[in-house]
Amino acid sequence: MSKHHEIEIYSIYIGNQDDTFVTDKTEEVDLEYGGIQGDLHFGLTKFAGSRESMYKRGTEIFNRRQISIVSVEECELIAEKLEVDQILPEWLGANVAIKGFRNLTKLPPGSRIIFPSGAGILCEGENLPCTQPGEVIQTKYPGILGLTTRFVKASLGQRGIVGIVESTGRIVSGDTAKVIVN
Amino acid sequence: MSKHHEIEIYSIYIGNQDDTFVTDKTEEVDLEYGGIQGDLHFGLTKFAGSRESMYKRGTEIFNRRQISIVSVEECELIAEKLEVDQILPEWLGANVAIKGFRNLTKLPPGSRIIFPSGAGILCEGENLPCTQPGEVIQTKYPGILGLTTRFVKASLGQRGIVGIVESTGRIVSGDTAKVIVN
Repeated sequence: MSKHHEIEIYSIYIGNQDDTFVTDKTEEVDLEYGGIQGDLHFGLTKFAGSRESMYKRGTEIFNRRQISIVSVEECELIAEKLEVDQILPEWLGANVAIKGFRNLTKLPPGSRIIFPSGAGILCEGENLPCTQPGEVIQTKYPGILGLTTRFVKASLGQRGIVGIVESTGRIVSGDTAKVIVN
Repeated sequence: MSKHHEIEIYSIYIGNQDDTFVTDKTEEVDLEYGGIQGDLHFGLTKFAGSRESMYKRGTEIFNRRQISIVSVEECELIAEKLEVDQILPEWLGANVAIKGFRNLTKLPPGSRIIFPSGAGILCEGENLPCTQPGEVIQTKYPGILGLTTRFVKASLGQRGIVGIVESTGRIVSGDTAKVIVN
């Protein structure tokens, strides 16, 4: 990977519904330390779950999953593999969908996405897929069998990344941002 | 690298002197979110400097340099290259010196060091060398020329890592800890 890439902030989302992790499209949000105020994953700390099995379940730990980012190109690839029309970023609980960076999920931890406002997100690595978005996708395509579990395999290595807010500021749909690869 | 390694916490240090980044050996410290209370690098945020040139200098950003970790083996290698008797971790401003993990500096970001208390440090990558520890080393070996600048080259790739506190807790000199490679 070369060191610098220009990308488009294709769309922005917030997860503030009570009963689902599915996010809603919005025009702009403020990145704060801990993520996006009001978002499901907002907070400087979280409780350790199955992804942090090195800690006792339920222990309070630093929250590396403040922001979820996907790429439009990888969503298209997952849709192709599942043979469905489309996979929308909000079904994956994404906060940011970017365009122009095909291999987002392979972005090494420590890489950064820098926005025109000066806001910056620090990549904390691949967002390992689980069945939850698969369940959502299954409800969108009731005529196609097995999407819940097929999603996990189809999206491994292509489901985007998680990150933390390194520098606060507003991010706006349509921004041209910069990826700095670590 | 294999996935799990047992290491020894060889020694622990705190940087609480007014006029230097050089640390002092201590028996145990509490890791808190932000690092070690009273340490020079303690804090959930810091001001962007030359290592964070993607942000305007002086901008408040999240602090990834909460804890500095070196390995005894790499300190010995640097000493060999500089042809000096020893390089002590405290001269490098280290908070933790570990033993039993030769290639610590190559530890990928996202890797973890887990302590018996449940405390955990998240690796944020290589601590890129600068001349400051070189100046300290030069004062220790006044008869050997050029150590200030030679240190930078000699320690590149071997000067240890920086990290953030992911899980709080006490860490004690002599602990057996676990490295989980990302």
